[in-house]
Amino acid sequence: MSGPARPGEDELIARHFAPLAGPGGLRLMDDAACIAPLPGCDIVLTADAVVAGVHFFPEDPADAIAWKALAVNLSDLAAKGADPLGYLLTLALPPGWSDDWLADFASGLGACAAAGGCPLLGGDTVKTPGPLTLSITALGSVPTGRMVPRTGAKPGDRIVVSGTIGDAALGLKARLDPLAPWLAAVGAGREHLLDRYLRPRPRGDIAALLRMHASGGMDVSDGFVGDLTKMMRASGCGARVDIGRVPLSEPARDAVSAEPGLLAAALTGGDDYEIIATVPPAALGALLAGAAAAGVPLAEVGEVTALAGKMIFLHNGREATFARGSFSHF
Amino acid sequence: MSGPARPGEDELIARHFAPLAGPGGLRLMDDAACIAPLPGCDIVLTADAVVAGVHFFPEDPADAIAWKALAVNLSDLAAKGADPLGYLLTLALPPGWSDDWLADFASGLGACAAAGGCPLLGGDTVKTPGPLTLSITALGSVPTGRMVPRTGAKPGDRIVVSGTIGDAALGLKARLDPLAPWLAAVGAGREHLLDRYLRPRPRGDIAALLRMHASGGMDVSDGFVGDLTKMMRASGCGARVDIGRVPLSEPARDAVSAEPGLLAAALTGGDDYEIIATVPPAALGALLAGAAAAGVPLAEVGEVTALAGKMIFLHNGREATFARGSFSHF
Repeated sequence: MSGPARPGEDELIARHFAPLAGPGGLRLMDDAACIAPLPGCDIVLTADAVVAGVHFFPEDPADAIAWKALAVNLSDLAAKGADPLGYLLTLALPPGWSDDWLADFASGLGACAAAGGCPLLGGDTVKTPGPLTLSITALGSVPTGRMVPRTGAKPGDRIVVSGTIGDAALGLKARLDPLAPWLAAVGAGREHLLDRYLRPRPRGDIAALLRMHASGGMDVSDGFVGDLTKMMRASGCGARVDIGRVPLSEPARDAVSAEPGLLAAALTGGDDYEIIATVPPAALGALLAGAAAAGVPLAEVGEVTALAGKMIFLHNGREATFARGSFSHF
Repeated sequence: MSGPARPGEDELIARHFAPLAGPGGLRLMDDAACIAPLPGCDIVLTADAVVAGVHFFPEDPADAIAWKALAVNLSDLAAKGADPLGYLLTLALPPGWSDDWLADFASGLGACAAAGGCPLLGGDTVKTPGPLTLSITALGSVPTGRMVPRTGAKPGDRIVVSGTIGDAALGLKARLDPLAPWLAAVGAGREHLLDRYLRPRPRGDIAALLRMHASGGMDVSDGFVGDLTKMMRASGCGARVDIGRVPLSEPARDAVSAEPGLLAAALTGGDDYEIIATVPPAALGALLAGAAAAGVPLAEVGEVTALAGKMIFLHNGREATFARGSFSHF
């Protein structure tokens, strides 16, 4: 990828990253960023790292790699009910990067940051003999004490899920096996699945609603079944879920019709970046109405139960089990 | 390095990292950290990534790798006059890590965090087919508007430097060529040089003094000459420095006596993690007295001049030039 016009570190930052910096980033000219927290607010912080060949395909478009790396952090902030304040990026570049590649990368980063209202604050660029590695720390703001915790679910709360589940997992399957028979049934919906894997859409539009109404929340990054189980364990609760109510996109439904075994893949695969939230019954109506007004689909899929760690997934009235609850990092 | 008892991701976090978490880290049980900023304060943010084989030797002790990765961030906070609030760590582990290695790593991280008063807030652990890669984002606090900027130097200000310069660069040389003739003159001082390369000591003890008295500041990470030049450019100033006043340790002086060419290496090599600050003449006395009381050596080495970018380094009354001002990342 190497071209004749590879800039040095300072020039690289000035050319590609400084234009993305918010006021707190001080034009990336200082050694640190500086932000004034909002009075009466807590700062919510999340960090995620992604590695080429592990979390994305090295040949993915540079702008999509950048988009996803930031989006997964914005998804965490949304699930916590936090409004984005900004992010820091460390970028370890392998040999052979080009200025064009970096320009595309910065454009994807800027597009995701603009969509999420989350400016660049700072970071670090280094070289690596290994694969491209990105680490992003994102900061958000919530009124004091109002972060939506993973641990807050209470027995009797309703469980809601945003968007649709399983598209990214099926998109990944389509990448890995483009000739899989089930893809014939999906037709043009294949593009939707591929796109959902490449470009998750963080649900920042319902962050304020979640902190108003939700008792608990987390984003679905490692698979719906596994992440819901994790959240219920953290809350000391169990859950009863009606799988028939878990929202699937039309392409995902087509895929499952053609190959029923894909339902488990959709429910346990990762990379959804949708939100699971628990809501006291009295607040459910307000949350659903608010989400509808914000244009974010939100589906009620079950309820929180009292028995810690006891997960019941009902499929056509019978209890289903999953061999593998979620994506494992090791 | 692989052993029989390698934990999974959740167990790894619970075993090695949760004990390091401060209250804002929520026992690393949630998807995000949450801190309450101090009223009337700004948040200062800095991020640095380090890669095995680029920024440290893969065979370095695990605790030293962790110490240095955090220390370089604490050094940035100190130079900005910020008191540490906490840090987030993303860790990309190569194949072959062991639980013992990780325990040592966590102990070095905890030691540096305790010394600097900077608790763990959160992070992410992923696997990589490449080299060990660490990224740390550190947060600090300053009274509103009081971050010490890189851009704040004014003509007539005095230039001060903490500690001693060049030890780490000479320590690195000693690592790379353990039989170098000059090491005979250094004797037991070799250990001091090696240690300065492995375990930088951030200057948090003078952070509050710097924000009270300094007009500008940055930490010396890429070499004294290059970093001072960078700071003066950012401030739109120049500088006149008396090299004879730049503080060298006894082992560094011995090295330079044995091989005079090492003076340039000491002044342009990286990894010092000392602080350059500029101070209005009227505040110099208070800063020097405060630093002495805090036990931090601070030496006056020159003054800021009006001609932007014009750097004059005087050595025994003659102007010296440097072929290579600083460590370049590319």
